[in-house]
Amino acid sequence: MKYTHHNNELNHQHINQEVYLKGWVAKNRNLGGLLFLDLRDRFGITQLVVKPGNQFYDTALKVKNEFVIEVKGTVIERESKNKNMNTGDIEVEVKELVILSSSETPPIIIANETDALEETRLKYRYLDLRRPVMQNYMVKRHEITQAIRSTLVEEGFYELETPILGKSTPEGARDYLVPSRLYPGSFYALPQSPQIYKQLFMIAGFEKYFQIARCFRDEDLRADRQPEFTQVDIEASFVNEEDVQTLIEKVMVKTFKKVLNVDVESPFIRMSFHEAMEKYGTDKPDIRYELLINDYTKIFQKIESPLFIGKSYIKGILLDNGGHLSRKRIDGLSALVKKNHGEALLYLKKSDGVISGSITKLMTEEQMNSLNLVDGQILFIVPGEFENVASSLGALRIELANEFNLIPENTYKFLWVVGWPLLEYSEEEQRYYAKHHPFTAPVDPEVLKNNPKKAMAKAYDIVLNGYEIGGGSIRIHNQNVQQLMFDTLGLSKEEIKHRFGFFVDALKYGTPPHGGLALGLDRVVMLMTGTANIKDVVAFPKTQSAKDMMMQAPSDVDANQLDELQIKVGKI
Amino acid sequence: MKYTHHNNELNHQHINQEVYLKGWVAKNRNLGGLLFLDLRDRFGITQLVVKPGNQFYDTALKVKNEFVIEVKGTVIERESKNKNMNTGDIEVEVKELVILSSSETPPIIIANETDALEETRLKYRYLDLRRPVMQNYMVKRHEITQAIRSTLVEEGFYELETPILGKSTPEGARDYLVPSRLYPGSFYALPQSPQIYKQLFMIAGFEKYFQIARCFRDEDLRADRQPEFTQVDIEASFVNEEDVQTLIEKVMVKTFKKVLNVDVESPFIRMSFHEAMEKYGTDKPDIRYELLINDYTKIFQKIESPLFIGKSYIKGILLDNGGHLSRKRIDGLSALVKKNHGEALLYLKKSDGVISGSITKLMTEEQMNSLNLVDGQILFIVPGEFENVASSLGALRIELANEFNLIPENTYKFLWVVGWPLLEYSEEEQRYYAKHHPFTAPVDPEVLKNNPKKAMAKAYDIVLNGYEIGGGSIRIHNQNVQQLMFDTLGLSKEEIKHRFGFFVDALKYGTPPHGGLALGLDRVVMLMTGTANIKDVVAFPKTQSAKDMMMQAPSDVDANQLDELQIKVGKI
Repeated sequence: MKYTHHNNELNHQHINQEVYLKGWVAKNRNLGGLLFLDLRDRFGITQLVVKPGNQFYDTALKVKNEFVIEVKGTVIERESKNKNMNTGDIEVEVKELVILSSSETPPIIIANETDALEETRLKYRYLDLRRPVMQNYMVKRHEITQAIRSTLVEEGFYELETPILGKSTPEGARDYLVPSRLYPGSFYALPQSPQIYKQLFMIAGFEKYFQIARCFRDEDLRADRQPEFTQVDIEASFVNEEDVQTLIEKVMVKTFKKVLNVDVESPFIRMSFHEAMEKYGTDKPDIRYELLINDYTKIFQKIESPLFIGKSYIKGILLDNGGHLSRKRIDGLSALVKKNHGEALLYLKKSDGVISGSITKLMTEEQMNSLNLVDGQILFIVPGEFENVASSLGALRIELANEFNLIPENTYKFLWVVGWPLLEYSEEEQRYYAKHHPFTAPVDPEVLKNNPKKAMAKAYDIVLNGYEIGGGSIRIHNQNVQQLMFDTLGLSKEEIKHRFGFFVDALKYGTPPHGGLALGLDRVVMLMTGTANIKDVVAFPKTQSAKDMMMQAPSDVDANQLDELQIKVGKI
Repeated sequence: MKYTHHNNELNHQHINQEVYLKGWVAKNRNLGGLLFLDLRDRFGITQLVVKPGNQFYDTALKVKNEFVIEVKGTVIERESKNKNMNTGDIEVEVKELVILSSSETPPIIIANETDALEETRLKYRYLDLRRPVMQNYMVKRHEITQAIRSTLVEEGFYELETPILGKSTPEGARDYLVPSRLYPGSFYALPQSPQIYKQLFMIAGFEKYFQIARCFRDEDLRADRQPEFTQVDIEASFVNEEDVQTLIEKVMVKTFKKVLNVDVESPFIRMSFHEAMEKYGTDKPDIRYELLINDYTKIFQKIESPLFIGKSYIKGILLDNGGHLSRKRIDGLSALVKKNHGEALLYLKKSDGVISGSITKLMTEEQMNSLNLVDGQILFIVPGEFENVASSLGALRIELANEFNLIPENTYKFLWVVGWPLLEYSEEEQRYYAKHHPFTAPVDPEVLKNNPKKAMAKAYDIVLNGYEIGGGSIRIHNQNVQQLMFDTLGLSKEEIKHRFGFFVDALKYGTPPHGGLALGLDRVVMLMTGTANIKDVVAFPKTQSAKDMMMQAPSDVDANQLDELQIKVGKI
């Protein structure tokens, strides 16, 4: 290519060199006849200067922001240097200037800071993506993807593609469907994950598979969900839980080093699901800070009050320097606890040697002293059942950590949550559901057979800074165990045959032990770039109502397209 | 992992070592009490021997083909060595043997050669893929993908993802549609290519984009088409045709070197569309062999016969050593010519100094002599109009090259076909169509305006061994030219606004000159692995009637899924 430099490259070493640059005009000023143009490309900005008398002066006068130009010029030293720019020591005196493309005034400002409405940003996504901060999200996404992939390839994994036009499955309620033209009335389904395909790769003997796979879920969207999302899908044969976890640790350590130059500690902590719920009140603990949930059942269950009597769990969080929290603020926290299914938020605080709070009247001096409160501390207590106590204190813990700045910045703490139950029981429907999915191996098939409620899974989630970024398991590789699992889930022989027949068949012909994991790429990129909005790391995202604001999709289609599909639309 | 070696690794250097192997049993024999098992993994085969008296002997007796086992054993020298195997010098005397998984007799034989019906192979794809030849196709596909990607990354390209849930476009007749649940009656469409998205990336300033992109086309399938296919989608800003071509040459040269250790010559030949049609009778010439089409119009148009009178093109192919072709065979070739729209196939051959053939009676001695035929040569002649003469002789050329073994093996000849017309005119519909797509830049917008029939495109196809493996162009980056193009194609203002409104808008805000190309990955893999069947290089392909034989997709779905989408199915 004819251009000699990117717009972040020139410095005092290039003075007097002739250069050829191109890019977008980020700023233009006319200072007493001297025209200054900031020329931007994906790498940075170079200041151009056009002097009166230059034969391209009139052309330069026409240039406005976001015009695309190319220039030839000479690097000269800048009078007033700008230490904040890579190229701040120099400017380029323009000798030739060609306008490649003009621009109307863009509807959003092309700068890191924006006050444009999200709707406007999405409608003009191609301009929103021109903002350097957005370009950086995409570039980081690219770098993260390459780093993850290269580690997997080094480890002997094959990148193999699986179909997007697949088959609807029993979890199919949230499948996107694609009507077939050749078989009217029949439908393909877009995959919620390549789960079955990757297991088939193991049966086919590929041993180590991965894919940066697009997945689809027609769910009512939450802030951090998109109808289509990308997962790093991984599967390997002849492995156990430890093998998979060690592999993923290697992938994450290398990726953080390459992309962020951050050293992540490994091996990651392993914590049981139960311990996570006990100490952090969530199955995805943020272990960047302490503020653990402690058990106060023994102390408080002795207190004769309806608040505590008959409560099997009475747990709490002890916060330093929380003595100044106002009554109003504590009411706010109380509302948060209730929103998260906690029965009540009680508290005791110590200030100038005196303990005050909502339950002092119920307690003896001795009981209060047994808490060993230190001046400035506040103790929050929630009584109730295990799950409600855990989830409400889990939410409170996060809220307090944010409010009291307990979360260290630029810190990345991974952990594995292990020791999951295999099944969940729905009292309402009187049936079991798979906690992960029906292909997850039980630790002991005998327990699954005889006491399904107690069955544990060979499953593991990977959690980073309080976000679940992936999950996986060792799979069932034995046809009888798979059958037992389907039976336990209450699937009829017909359903199994109709939906999974080929897969149960496949297990008959020499299926190796295997397992794997899927990483949520969008979320990994989000955490690594420090944005809270998943849309920032997806080039062309949909709104929370699954709409593409730029293209205006979904949209109506020609009637004859529907005729060909033999489909009719409308309230039925 | 606990396994010490793959099954292709052990040789005489490992003798007496203790090893730990795993894999599938490819063969099992009982020779006078000695049990021999061939243990297969994705890398190769190791022979195991289990001696009578071994405590695992009874277990080993149970092992059948395709069982998955793991063994511990000692490497020993083999008595009768097998020079055809990497591990042919040794065998492993088994000390411990564990059956990890049993297998019923598989419905297809797991070996390179198969006589299984394609339907059976597709139904049991997970077993078909276990055949080493099929594993090799997938591994090569992986290697090719990595090689292409790494070159693009080295060249500064960003790998960026684009949506699968997009919008139906005017070429939309072949779009797969996805009904929206949140907006009943509206549809997403699966992309036929990420064309518009990649141009938007250029407008957004990313400058260099690529993606290994899944594309979808609901066409009536041909042997080398699949409803979903993968393309290496590439776009760059501030480039011209030459820049894109040079980049792709670099990608292909490096990929062939890395994956096949083949040195491909570059730069590739550039040939105009017109020359390709003249000399090869096709827009995707196979230049591995000569056998060019020559012009005989001057000689034959003088012959007073209805065969030649008024025919504007009389062209032919001169074949050495074709004198022995039987009358019957020539009739067969004649049928081929007619099938490819040729009016008639005429011929002259010289044998023992005598010229014979279908038109000797029409010609003077002098006319025949002017052809300068050499003994053994046969000259095939087709008279008619340009396109019919070209296409029929093009087909004849390929047929003869195959029959006379003129195509050198393991040779890869690339070329660029350039100099394309921008538009095609449909006499029937009295309107123009874009020869490539409506975003392709004209060489000269003035010609497009004043004489569209003569407008040439900045387009290029890349051809390998007679197959088009990719195509691209420099795009229109000027809003007025894009408008002119749409006008010429007869799109109304409303259509443009409804379908492309956002894109025409986008062109207003500083669009850099840009262009790119898309490579058909499936076809590249096909050619590089030497298979003629595209299904061989797709892990889970569909049949020619777009059916997944293994999963039985497309399939019926639950009525309540359709209710939620407010869709009704059936003849209307």
